[in-house]
Parts: sequence; structure tokens; C-alpha cells
Amino acid sequence: MGFAGRLWDAIAAKKSPAMVGLDPRPDHFPEPFRSAAQAGPVEAAEAMVDYHRELLDVLAKKIAVVKPQTAFFEQFGPAGFRALSDAVDSAKERGLLVVMDAKRGDIGSTSAAYAQAFLGGGAYGAFPAADALTVNPYLGKDACQPFLEMAKKQDAGLFFLVKTSNPGAGLFQDHGQPPLADVIAAAVHEWGKETVDESGWSSLGAVVGATRPEELAHFRALMPQTPLLLPGFGHQGGTADGLSPAFHDGKGAIVNSSRDVLWAHERDDLAHLPDWQARVDCALDEMIAALGPLV
Amino acid sequence: MGFAGRLWDAIAAKKSPAMVGLDPRPDHFPEPFRSAAQAGPVEAAEAMVDYHRELLDVLAKKIAVVKPQTAFFEQFGPAGFRALSDAVDSAKERGLLVVMDAKRGDIGSTSAAYAQAFLGGGAYGAFPAADALTVNPYLGKDACQPFLEMAKKQDAGLFFLVKTSNPGAGLFQDHGQPPLADVIAAAVHEWGKETVDESGWSSLGAVVGATRPEELAHFRALMPQTPLLLPGFGHQGGTADGLSPAFHDGKGAIVNSSRDVLWAHERDDLAHLPDWQARVDCALDEMIAALGPLV
Repeated sequence: MGFAGRLWDAIAAKKSPAMVGLDPRPDHFPEPFRSAAQAGPVEAAEAMVDYHRELLDVLAKKIAVVKPQTAFFEQFGPAGFRALSDAVDSAKERGLLVVMDAKRGDIGSTSAAYAQAFLGGGAYGAFPAADALTVNPYLGKDACQPFLEMAKKQDAGLFFLVKTSNPGAGLFQDHGQPPLADVIAAAVHEWGKETVDESGWSSLGAVVGATRPEELAHFRALMPQTPLLLPGFGHQGGTADGLSPAFHDGKGAIVNSSRDVLWAHERDDLAHLPDWQARVDCALDEMIAALGPLV
Repeated sequence: MGFAGRLWDAIAAKKSPAMVGLDPRPDHFPEPFRSAAQAGPVEAAEAMVDYHRELLDVLAKKIAVVKPQTAFFEQFGPAGFRALSDAVDSAKERGLLVVMDAKRGDIGSTSAAYAQAFLGGGAYGAFPAADALTVNPYLGKDACQPFLEMAKKQDAGLFFLVKTSNPGAGLFQDHGQPPLADVIAAAVHEWGKETVDESGWSSLGAVVGATRPEELAHFRALMPQTPLLLPGFGHQGGTADGLSPAFHDGKGAIVNSSRDVLWAHERDDLAHLPDWQARVDCALDEMIAALGPLV
């Protein structure tokens, strides 16, 4: 069973394609983690570790996949990178799949180092292996090759940036005729053919913003066997309406929300709930219900 | 004085546009660091710290700029990230300018976190600020905006990927008419106009492979005030011949070599020199001599 098959099984078990991003911002941690984080970068990273362990306890009961965002950890320096390592370990211990959202991409020898870092277990086992990695394909296929090889070796997934969720994504991604994003989509489909597993899906996925429902059917047609990672659900404006072209028979995509779930404890309308976990759980239920018709 | 002016002053003081990449691969460390690194990731990171301090002593005597490559540090997990932090501190203590080669790029809120991580001193001062950062512009201007703002605030530089040094760079970078790389070059030139300092150059730079001398005059014409970072000199095939269109009056570009300098201790023809430092120093002299006519 390849990455895609494992992904669909995990989603089926949880009856939801919902994924939550781990974008740790200590100013938005619930208490006592928020206060504990104020003392400095090491204390912030320690609070991050403690918070994520408790958060992952809540998430693991309801969803199948989490997406740590490397930037928010790297801000906190070496201690932040240690907190990232712990988050991956903690997520895996709880049975969650981990999509490392690092958006890396470089010339071949450097891409090989990134592939080793995030999918290969690090050099000398220095870092826990994620189940999948986001990759920026701008440098071309030769530069992506080490990611393709590592994914094959580790039976891991990749999600190539095709059309991102930010408002100005089209500036370069829509350049040319056909638009660059279409050319990259066709390439991802082609590269992925040899990785199609018994589920009928490739282990090479693509990122297409959940903020672009009008384009989903188009990209699905260009990439019929490609798992889609749809970021931007909720806070960035994406809604469940219109995501259906990404899905077929309950499979086909994972849908990410970060702030709407992570910051649920700040919602006035959930203030009656006993603790931050209950509020996160409630926001998760809302997201799962909204996405329910898709799977 | 902006980043560009500081860069040209530093290059003038050393009479060379040579830059060396810090791409730490323990298998290619000189002894005793190579053996010390074999024991595990923490030991490898400690050997990396010790090696870089001694290496930077040699580099700081001859060149003005170093370019740590984040991938090779991140492979070693949290300890590797600590070694990266130490390399930046050590380089700055020795008066070197630091171009962090991280090639980051993400949606705005995440780019802001990367900008804080590498140019802003990290969250709560968790990481030493580099002088400049390489950025992948694929996500568009809104996604690059936090990098632009942080560079302005910190008086730092940015180098946007325009045409990379790998053989297959053209696959997506040449897409469309005009080619995407030209469109991005024009954008970088435009975005940089307001950052031009008294040296007449922008603090927004561009990466164009030193392996592409035939294209340099073209990109220089599209970006007349843009500092160019030319990677791939030496091992990747780039030579000093043909880099002259990037330069004007001794200014205009920095030229990177990594392996040709870092691995000089492995050269049989330098085996007569007393230690690895002398061999690195000799390779540096060769690079500086080759680039001499440019400045």
C-alpha cells in the first residue's frame, strides 16, 4: 500500500478529509501555555511542546492528518526545531499522518539534503520522518528528483505547489499560455504515474488552494490520480461548497484549516465550554460537519 | 547605506566578489572533524560548529561573504539548527556578511515567520539575523511582501530566484513568452526601485546561475540595478569567463563556490601543503585570482 492508500484509509477511518495545520504562534496559545511562552525562545519552545502534545490528543480523536508548518517553528531557533521534532513524534505516536509543510525546493544536491531532513529521518536519524512533504517545483524536474527518489524509498508522499491559496498566487502561476500552473499540474500527473498504488492514486500530490473552488474541476481533470492538498479552508476564505470536484468516492483530497481550529479558544461564542480543548473540539466538529458531504 | 552599499564596500575591501557556501557534509570534513562527526547527529553538529569556526578564520581573511545553506544543517535536526546559528554568529563576529540560502517562500503570514526567523533575529531573539536571504518568488508578490518589509526594516538584502544554476532550470523558468524568468526579473527590478541606495544599487537581488554566462547580459539588462548572486562557480561548471556582464565598475554581483573551496583538502595536487587550512586557502586564492579581472 502506497502513501495514497494509507491516506485514504486514514481518512475513511476518521470519516473526514479534515487536516489541521500546526502553525504555532505563542500569542494565540491557550493558557497556561501562552503565559509560559513569554519568557524567551527556549521557554516558548517548551510551551509549544507541551501545548502540541495536549492539542494532538484532541486532534487524534477526530482527524487523520496534521500539517506542521516549519516556518512557525524555525522562528524559535534551535529550540523551535526541537519542538518541531517533538510535534512529529507526538503526532505519529497518536496515529496521525504528518504532512510536513516546508515548501522546500533547491538544486539537486541540496534537495537531497532536504529530502533526507524531512522524509529520510534526518542524517544519522536526527529527525523523525514525516509521511509527506510539500515541495516548491520552480527549479524543475532535476531539482525535484531527490524528493521523488526519497518518497519512493520511504513510501512517502509529496505535495507539489501548483496553485497556492494566497490572493496574488496568479502573478507568476498563471503566466503563459497554457498557464504555468497547468504545465506544472501536467508534470506532477506525469511524474506520479509510476507511483499509482492499488487505491488507484499516486503518491505525488499537489497543492491547490481551497480558496479557488472555481479552478478545482480544472486541476482535477489535469491530475485525475493526484491527491490534492487544499489549504485555506476557513480563515483564508475557503468553504466546503465547491470542493466536491476534488473528491471521488470519498477520496481525492485533504482539506486544511489552521487558525479556525487552533484559535477556537478565543471565540466568544464558545466561552461557555469548560476549557480550550472543548473549544478546539467544537471547532473540529464544525469543520468535520462542513466537510461531511465530501466523504 | 543600504545592503547593496555595504556589500560593495565589503567586496572592495577584499578586492574580490568571491563568496563561499557553507554546505556542511561531514563525510567531506577535514580531520579531525570528519571522524568526530561519525558518532551521531549531536556529535556531527558539534564537529560542524568547531569546523566552521576554524574554516571561517581562513575565509574571513580573503573574502567578504559566506552563504550558509540551510538544508545541510537541517538534516542534522535541532543540533544542526544550533550549528547553523553558531555559523551565522561566528561569521558575523569575523566581519563576514551572511547570505542565508534558504530559498523560502510561502503565503504571507508564513513568509512573515520565515522573514522573522532568518532576517529578523528570530522570535524573542532566538536566531542571529543574517544580512540577506534567498527567496523563492513562485507564490507571487503578496507572498513576498513580508520579506520585502522585513528587509526594509532590517536594512537587509533579498536574492530572488530568477534563473537557477541546475541543468533543468528552464523547465518551468523558461515557460511562456516572455519566459517566466524574464517576468520575475522585471518584477524584482520594479520592486527594488524604492530600495536603491547611494551606491546606485537596490537591496533586492536576484539569483542567476554562474553556469549560464550566455544569459547574464540579458538578465543584467532586465535588472540594471539588481545585485546578482551567481551560484555554481567551479564544481557546477561555471567559470569566470563570461561573468563580466554582471559587473559594472567592480560592482554588481557575488560569485559563489562551495565544493571547490570546502573540499580542497581532498585534492592530491595540494597534498604537499601542511594542513587543510592551507589547502582551503590555496583554493580560495585560485578562485580570487580567477575572478580578479571582474572587480
